[in-house]
Amino acid sequence: MQKQAIKNIEVCFSPALYDYYRNDNAIVVVSDILRATTAICAAFDNGVRNLIPVGGIDEAREWKGKGYLVAAERDGIVLDFADFGNSPFNFRPDRVRGKTIVYSTTNGTQAIMMASGAKHVAAGAFVNLSALAGWLRETGCDVVVLCAGWKNRFSLEDSVFAGALADKLIGSGNFATMCDAAVAARELWLTARSDLVGYIEKAAHRHRLKKLGLDDVLGYCFTPDSTNVIPVLKGNMLVSLTDY
Amino acid sequence: MQKQAIKNIEVCFSPALYDYYRNDNAIVVVSDILRATTAICAAFDNGVRNLIPVGGIDEAREWKGKGYLVAAERDGIVLDFADFGNSPFNFRPDRVRGKTIVYSTTNGTQAIMMASGAKHVAAGAFVNLSALAGWLRETGCDVVVLCAGWKNRFSLEDSVFAGALADKLIGSGNFATMCDAAVAARELWLTARSDLVGYIEKAAHRHRLKKLGLDDVLGYCFTPDSTNVIPVLKGNMLVSLTDY
Repeated sequence: MQKQAIKNIEVCFSPALYDYYRNDNAIVVVSDILRATTAICAAFDNGVRNLIPVGGIDEAREWKGKGYLVAAERDGIVLDFADFGNSPFNFRPDRVRGKTIVYSTTNGTQAIMMASGAKHVAAGAFVNLSALAGWLRETGCDVVVLCAGWKNRFSLEDSVFAGALADKLIGSGNFATMCDAAVAARELWLTARSDLVGYIEKAAHRHRLKKLGLDDVLGYCFTPDSTNVIPVLKGNMLVSLTDY
Repeated sequence: MQKQAIKNIEVCFSPALYDYYRNDNAIVVVSDILRATTAICAAFDNGVRNLIPVGGIDEAREWKGKGYLVAAERDGIVLDFADFGNSPFNFRPDRVRGKTIVYSTTNGTQAIMMASGAKHVAAGAFVNLSALAGWLRETGCDVVVLCAGWKNRFSLEDSVFAGALADKLIGSGNFATMCDAAVAARELWLTARSDLVGYIEKAAHRHRLKKLGLDDVLGYCFTPDSTNVIPVLKGNMLVSLTDY
């Protein structure tokens, strides 16, 4: 058996930096832990057929006009025309199984669209961490973790997830990095991992959600490996890797 | 005596993110540890009168044509028309005392120019860490640390310095933060501080310098508090705070 070449993992801390990390031969893993990519994993775990990520509010409204089920929020608030918002708990089996849902959020869905030129694009979250890492090791491609951030600012929880993934991949011996952001993210993860929810108490967005009474999702969002789904972008839709 | 209001410290990990952290009432501290802001501190410590930071190579060449002493490098290499490059050891007392020097580097001088709309702009480095923190506490302004990075990518050493400064300011009780990047930078500093040079072995730029045989500066660049100078931007020139 041929020895697999060591692949490269890099971490991009903001969509506004994506041009400087872009590698169209890589798999881009989008990280928006609170809450878009966690909710996307929940939706597939609960049997959604596909998700159409859209950037703009107007575009989301147009899809609604065409009769689609639409999940859409801005700054944590459900948009008035939408069927529901961004909590992973909204994507219940009775609501989503077998359906196509249009999905638009403050940061995460734009980041997914931005990466669409890459070899593959996947949604990553703590909830699918090990399954995702297993697939990334198998494919033998370089990996770029694109942190969705908060309005182009650095976000702690997205970066700690990037570090958890980097740690798994580098720890497997199949990946290495010379990317300072990947090194830093991994350090943050190593500090955070023994008490992830406690650590993320420090994060700004956690406080934004608390103010809005939306912090019931924290336990779910920070518990690794509750699902094996790997949502991937196929054309303009997210599908399960099993349908890719 | 009136109690001073708690001020805010934020950290911007890349010049390409500056628009999202911009606060024109703040003091912007530019961090380019390897090597621009460390070299700027060395120059003032050795008696330079002022430094003119310039972004472009052509502009630096024009200043040379007008008879100025020019320090200029790109990617760690001294430009052919320049008198010397970017090592802090180049800014020797016999060369710089009482002089005006034009200075252009890959990342740092552009970051200084970019911040020129702020209330004050200062050059920060480990070598002037405590002096700088003391001044920032006295002025009672918000602080934004602008990490020069590497061609708009995140840089470990610039960010660890930002964390060291954040730690000093927050530890003083005069500053607080809700900025995730400041929280992360501080965490990196707390992990790094017991063996700073060993930690920065992980940084990509440290390897770039090693390849070029320019890593003799590491001891100097990572030893805190060798000087009390605070270089600040006055018009288009860096001057010592004592001449501001």
